[in-house]
Amino acid sequence: MAAEFKTLKEEAWEANMEIPKRGLAIYTWGNVSAFDAPRGVFAIKPSGVPYDKLKAEDLVVVDLDGKIAEGKLNPSSDTETHRVLYLEFVRLAKSGEPAVKGITHTHSPYAVAFAQAKLPVPVYGTTHADHGAEEIPCTEFMSEEAVRNNYELETGRLIVETFTKQKKNPLHMPMILVAGHGPFTWGKNPAQSVYHAAVLEEVCKMAYFTLALKPDVKPLPEHIIRKHWERKHGPNAYYGQS
Amino acid sequence: MAAEFKTLKEEAWEANMEIPKRGLAIYTWGNVSAFDAPRGVFAIKPSGVPYDKLKAEDLVVVDLDGKIAEGKLNPSSDTETHRVLYLEFVRLAKSGEPAVKGITHTHSPYAVAFAQAKLPVPVYGTTHADHGAEEIPCTEFMSEEAVRNNYELETGRLIVETFTKQKKNPLHMPMILVAGHGPFTWGKNPAQSVYHAAVLEEVCKMAYFTLALKPDVKPLPEHIIRKHWERKHGPNAYYGQS
Amino acid sequence: MAAEFKTLKEEAWEANMEIPKRGLAIYTWGNVSAFDAPRGVFAIKPSGVPYDKLKAEDLVVVDLDGKIAEGKLNPSSDTETHRVLYLEFVRLAKSGEPAVKGITHTHSPYAVAFAQAKLPVPVYGTTHADHGAEEIPCTEFMSEEAVRNNYELETGRLIVETFTKQKKNPLHMPMILVAGHGPFTWGKNPAQSVYHAAVLEEVCKMAYFTLALKPDVKPLPEHIIRKHWERKHGPNAYYGQS
Amino acid sequence: MAAEFKTLKEEAWEANMEIPKRGLAIYTWGNVSAFDAPRGVFAIKPSGVPYDKLKAEDLVVVDLDGKIAEGKLNPSSDTETHRVLYLEFVRLAKSGEPAVKGITHTHSPYAVAFAQAKLPVPVYGTTHADHGAEEIPCTEFMSEEAVRNNYELETGRLIVETFTKQKKNPLHMPMILVAGHGPFTWGKNPAQSVYHAAVLEEVCKMAYFTLALKPDVKPLPEHIIRKHWERKHGPNAYYGQS
Repeated sequence: MAAEFKTLKEEAWEANMEIPKRGLAIYTWGNVSAFDAPRGVFAIKPSGVPYDKLKAEDLVVVDLDGKIAEGKLNPSSDTETHRVLYLEFVRLAKSGEPAVKGITHTHSPYAVAFAQAKLPVPVYGTTHADHGAEEIPCTEFMSEEAVRNNYELETGRLIVETFTKQKKNPLHMPMILVAGHGPFTWGKNPAQSVYHAAVLEEVCKMAYFTLALKPDVKPLPEHIIRKHWERKHGPNAYYGQS
Repeated sequence: MAAEFKTLKEEAWEANMEIPKRGLAIYTWGNVSAFDAPRGVFAIKPSGVPYDKLKAEDLVVVDLDGKIAEGKLNPSSDTETHRVLYLEFVRLAKSGEPAVKGITHTHSPYAVAFAQAKLPVPVYGTTHADHGAEEIPCTEFMSEEAVRNNYELETGRLIVETFTKQKKNPLHMPMILVAGHGPFTWGKNPAQSVYHAAVLEEVCKMAYFTLALKPDVKPLPEHIIRKHWERKHGPNAYYGQS
Repeated sequence: MAAEFKTLKEEAWEANMEIPKRGLAIYTWGNVSAFDAPRGVFAIKPSGVPYDKLKAEDLVVVDLDGKIAEGKLNPSSDTETHRVLYLEFVRLAKSGEPAVKGITHTHSPYAVAFAQAKLPVPVYGTTHADHGAEEIPCTEFMSEEAVRNNYELETGRLIVETFTKQKKNPLHMPMILVAGHGPFTWGKNPAQSVYHAAVLEEVCKMAYFTLALKPDVKPLPEHIIRKHWERKHGPNAYYGQS
Repeated sequence: MAAEFKTLKEEAWEANMEIPKRGLAIYTWGNVSAFDAPRGVFAIKPSGVPYDKLKAEDLVVVDLDGKIAEGKLNPSSDTETHRVLYLEFVRLAKSGEPAVKGITHTHSPYAVAFAQAKLPVPVYGTTHADHGAEEIPCTEFMSEEAVRNNYELETGRLIVETFTKQKKNPLHMPMILVAGHGPFTWGKNPAQSVYHAAVLEEVCKMAYFTLALKPDVKPLPEHIIRKHWERKHGPNAYYGQS
């Protein structure tokens, strides 16, 4: 493997291997990319390659214009979605370093169920609030015209638009459900993006069970939501080791 | 093991071993067969042998008249069902090579639940649409007369008739639920038939969760269904590596 | 370990080890016994010993009067239930060899749920019919007097009475739910009794999913139930290798 | 590692490692502490360290005033909750040895679901009664003022108050659900506290399934509850080996 993108591809490979390990997708139904902001490229899983056959050198490096910078295989069919999202995170960073350097897409079943039911996920507990202080958004269905244009690119646009319309900040809410499809999540590195994919599945599972026990359950009181979010992400966060 | 059917039996054995690995059945509750179209025979799991005892040489080779071509053990009790389905795929191919060379039967629990509830599975999301652009059919219950005649052969006929009545093409919809019983799936080789069995279980699980969250959920809009089907199976498919 | 009951204890040990392997109970929440009919004794798990510490020599051998024939540990607290059931199977066999030589008790969650809801399990599909041609019975709650007398012995009596009252034959229906408690199953040997415990859990899981999908689901038509039962257990059974 | 707290930290470490092994939490979402009553200190998991990286020497030893007695890492963010609970168990013991020497917190999904629905768990079966003869309590939501004061310390107080208000004895009911958050459990040692966390998850799973099957299910009759509790915990308990 060419030395140039070795580290980036290894980082992306490692995060991709978390998908089967965490039970977030069967067969090839998921992908993670790793973003190298200064060089404007990301390494992504090749299309249709099963995880147990996947090697770090198989990862495909794509630039922000969608051109392949390195790699012999076809990149994930979802590559355009990742590209649009990285462009958005670059835009949000203005001239600074983008805060997001990893994106994950899976078909984990509880998250998919909320996506198929086209339901956002309210904050029912602290597990959710530890990772986001508001409901997890769900997009609308993509229009016929957008599908005809460029489906995967438009999936990225749909995600960006949903955040804009709902006045949500994707740096504070690192996950979304694409209606009828499934989850996309992101993070400061590929490992955190797949961590958020696992968090989302667990939070959706807990929300599903909660709704079954009490269909008219109310969200967690706002002061508890804020507390859990702040102790992990606020200016005086005190969770963890640094 | 006689050299004659060595490869066919190994291919069938490998696919059978995916059943416990993917959690699609416990004990002996499933079977896969591998079809050798030019020779008009298929290799199938012997009846009642647990997967952890199963060796490739134990597989039984049966011809399209239902006679044992090789093997000392009794073939799966579902052999006649597989045979009727292969005959149908030969018929559909006319003089060409049949498109289906593997069939799988399991008792995976979510698929069985839809079969026991005698409910087809509507297309609620892209996971489903990636593998079929229409609802997964469910048969009617078999008549008393058909049961009396030859239950397993009639199971095959019931599947064929259901596709005919519902004007569905089994080459576009590689799976069906037999009412009160469970799933049968097929593919271009035995590995793909068991892949479709795993897909069906995952799609049924997602549909089950979706219905619990929103009992009146509508199917995915048709233009999204078509797009997902076409990008994997249409004339300009672009998923995967070839 | 004394030579006398070595084989019996090993057979019981092996079947007990299937409980954690098949996920039928956590910690020590289950037990299997092996019956030696000619000698009128059964080997059973010691009370409260976790499976990963359990050795074949730890098994306790108890006679049909409830006296310990071999073993230094306390036998399972459910020993009296097993004893009453073996006495019943001896009675049913008249002067012949009893048909049942193994009994299993677990706390597998779907079976426990039906027991806690005090609901028998109707025959919703062929997975069930393959192992019993009628609904799986559930007892009534034990009376206060019976609990005061000898709880575990009375659990055995409650099971026997339930079969009598419902005119069911425990040789045709090898499993029952004790209301508010959980499942007891049996078989021609300890291995088959734990197999029936796994079957029961899978059948309850499928019934649970089916009821969620269609609360007013009807049982499988009787002619399909009979067919599945007969092909495995009737005079002309043709499933398996003998 | 300093010799002083070596055994205590090893005991706490071993119990912490049960959390991922028993599937009670993903990533770092749980913690166990081990209490050394004579020295008035407890060893607890460091904050945010994943289980597969955790070593016994990483555990942090904290005294009953909340000061770190040994350890370089930050203790669990839930340390104050553990501390308040140990203080309460010391108080309950008066001048004697406290009965509780281990506390566990997890985010196991079925227990969290009851906590998110703010529902206590009634005694629906003997699995529950074997570990507690009454419903598993659930707290109220913490007030805005308490959250502002010291959230984790107030979580401990909320637990203590709930037991007081409901006239429950925490030595007879070793588990509670904190509303909107999740479970805390305890035991005579750290191993038993994590055992109770696994029991709680299993009991909640069974209660969830039972409620789905029969929404108006009644609790187990009181005489059966008492019997199961007494045979394991009463003055004439006869379960187990001593």
